[in-house]
Amino acid sequence: MSFAALQEKIIATGNPTVAGLDARLSYVPPFLVEQAVQEYGETRKAAAEAIFAFNCGLMDALSGIVPAVKPQAAYYELLGWEGVEMMERTIRYAQEKGLYVIADIKRGDIGATASAYAEGWLGKTAVGSAKLPCFDADCVTVNGYMGADAVSPFLKVANEEDKALFALVRTSNPSAVDLQDLELNGKKVYEVMGDLVAKWGEGYEDAYGYNRVGAVVGATWPEQLAQLRKALPHTFFLVPGYGAQGGTAEDVQYAFDSQGHGAIVNSSRGIMCAWQKTGHNGEDYGEAARNAAIAMRDAITAITPIR
Amino acid sequence: MSFAALQEKIIATGNPTVAGLDARLSYVPPFLVEQAVQEYGETRKAAAEAIFAFNCGLMDALSGIVPAVKPQAAYYELLGWEGVEMMERTIRYAQEKGLYVIADIKRGDIGATASAYAEGWLGKTAVGSAKLPCFDADCVTVNGYMGADAVSPFLKVANEEDKALFALVRTSNPSAVDLQDLELNGKKVYEVMGDLVAKWGEGYEDAYGYNRVGAVVGATWPEQLAQLRKALPHTFFLVPGYGAQGGTAEDVQYAFDSQGHGAIVNSSRGIMCAWQKTGHNGEDYGEAARNAAIAMRDAITAITPIR
Repeated sequence: MSFAALQEKIIATGNPTVAGLDARLSYVPPFLVEQAVQEYGETRKAAAEAIFAFNCGLMDALSGIVPAVKPQAAYYELLGWEGVEMMERTIRYAQEKGLYVIADIKRGDIGATASAYAEGWLGKTAVGSAKLPCFDADCVTVNGYMGADAVSPFLKVANEEDKALFALVRTSNPSAVDLQDLELNGKKVYEVMGDLVAKWGEGYEDAYGYNRVGAVVGATWPEQLAQLRKALPHTFFLVPGYGAQGGTAEDVQYAFDSQGHGAIVNSSRGIMCAWQKTGHNGEDYGEAARNAAIAMRDAITAITPIR
Repeated sequence: MSFAALQEKIIATGNPTVAGLDARLSYVPPFLVEQAVQEYGETRKAAAEAIFAFNCGLMDALSGIVPAVKPQAAYYELLGWEGVEMMERTIRYAQEKGLYVIADIKRGDIGATASAYAEGWLGKTAVGSAKLPCFDADCVTVNGYMGADAVSPFLKVANEEDKALFALVRTSNPSAVDLQDLELNGKKVYEVMGDLVAKWGEGYEDAYGYNRVGAVVGATWPEQLAQLRKALPHTFFLVPGYGAQGGTAEDVQYAFDSQGHGAIVNSSRGIMCAWQKTGHNGEDYGEAARNAAIAMRDAITAITPIR
C-alpha cells in the first residue's frame, strides 16, 4: 500500500507511530518462552514460536491504537529459516489485523539483484505460469549507498503494486556521523543522499503530496530532521530512535508537515518491553504495550496534532 | 573461516575466483525445473528444489576447481522462506564439499540490530542453554553507510568465530558514481569508506598480512581498484563485476598484491549460465560451468600468477 494508505490509517487511529516487532527471546515474557521450549525443546523452532505468540499478542493489543508495525528482518534471520518463515506469518497476521507493514530490511544491491529483493519483498515471484506473493509487505526500507540502480527496482515494483519504500538518509545511531556527516563541497553526505531520494521519487504525488520514496531520518538528530523536512517536502519520513535511543516528542515534531502529516515515528523496545516495568512478569505484556503506545501517541500528538 | 583459510584454498586450487550462486529459475536447466514442478506444482517449494538441485550439481562440478562460493541472499528471499531454508541447505552442502562460503547479504543496521544479523549469519543464537548455529557462513558482505556501529558487531562475531567480512567500498554497478564518487574535501566517498574499512580492520593480521574486514571493489573500475589496493595493503578484496558486467582479467590484475594474493574475483552468470551457450539444453550444465570456471581461472592466473 502507498503512503496515502498509511497516512489514512494514521489519521484514523490519530496516531503517527509504528510499533517495531524486533523481538529477541529476552524481550519475550518468560511464560511464552517456557511454553514453546516445553513443546519444541531448546530449538530455533521454539524461539520462533515464542516470538510469534508474542508478536500476535502485541498486535492484538495494539490493533486500533497504532496504524502500522515494522518487523526488523535481523531478529528473524537470527533464528535462521524458521525465523524467516515466522516473519512471513507475522506480516500476514498484521495485514489481517488491518496494520500497515513496513518490512525493515535495509536491502541495497545492484540492479538485477535489487529486482530479486524487490519482487520477493514487495512483488510477486514467477514460477511457471503462477505469480506468487512471498513476503508481500506494504513497504520496505532500502540502503542507497550503491546509487539509483540499487533503488529503482524497488520503485518499479512499488509503482506496479501501489506500495512504497524508505531509503536511509540520516540514521539514528551515533556512528551515523562517520560517513553521513562528511562534507562534499559544502553539502554533507546525508544531504546529498536526501537530494537523491527526492529525485528518485519525482513524478508521482499522492493525495497528501508525498511520493513513493520516503526517507529514514533519526529522531536523535532534530536539527537535521527540521532541515530535511524543509528540503524534502514530498518525502515521507520514517523516524526511528524514539525512546530507548533518546529521541523525544519535542525532537520528532520537526518530522511532520504543517498538517501533522508526512511522517511516522517508530518505537520498538519502548512498546515491546513495556511489560518489564510493570512487575507482573509479563502476564500483562499486551496491556503494557498498549498503554505505552497510547502514552507515546499522546506525547507526540500533544505537540504535533494531526489535522 | 578467516581470510587466511580462504587464501589457502585459493592456493590449493590455484584459483582466485568465487562462483556466485545467484540462480533465478530462468538460469536453471529446464529439465530440473520440470522435475521439480512435476513433484511440487507451480509453487515456491518447486522453485526452491529446482534451484537446490542446480546449486548442488554446480558445486559437485566446481569442487576442486574453485575455492569458494557466494550465494546472494536476494535470489533466495525471492522465494520467500522456502528459498531461505534452501539457502541454509546450500551453505551446508558447500561446506561439506570443502568450499569457503561468502554469504552475500550486504546487511547494514544499527548496533543491536547488526548484532542480531551477525549472530544469525556468522555466529550462534542462544535458546535457553543451547547455542545454535543458523546460517553459519564463513564470511558475509556488509554495508557501512551507517558507520562503525553497523560494522563492529560483525567484526566482534568474526573475531569470536575466526571468520571474516567484506564491506562495500566501490561497487561494480554504473550508479556507484551517484554517491561513491562525490568529493569530500579532496577525497571521494569511496576513498573515505576505504579508509574507514582499513581502520575497522586494524589490530589483526593473518599469516598473509590481511585483517578480518575486507572490501568489495568492482572489477568494472580498474583505476580505483589499483588505487585502493595501494591505499589498503591489509584489506582483502572481493571483486564482483567480472564477465557479464564487463570486468576482464586485465582489469582485475590490480586487485592482487605482488604475490597474487589478497583478492578473490566473483563470477555468477558466466559460470551458472554457461550451459546456455553449449546447445545441449542444460543437460551438461555441470560440465559447462566447470569449463567456464577453468577458463576464468586460466585467464586471470595467466596475467596474475599465484605465488
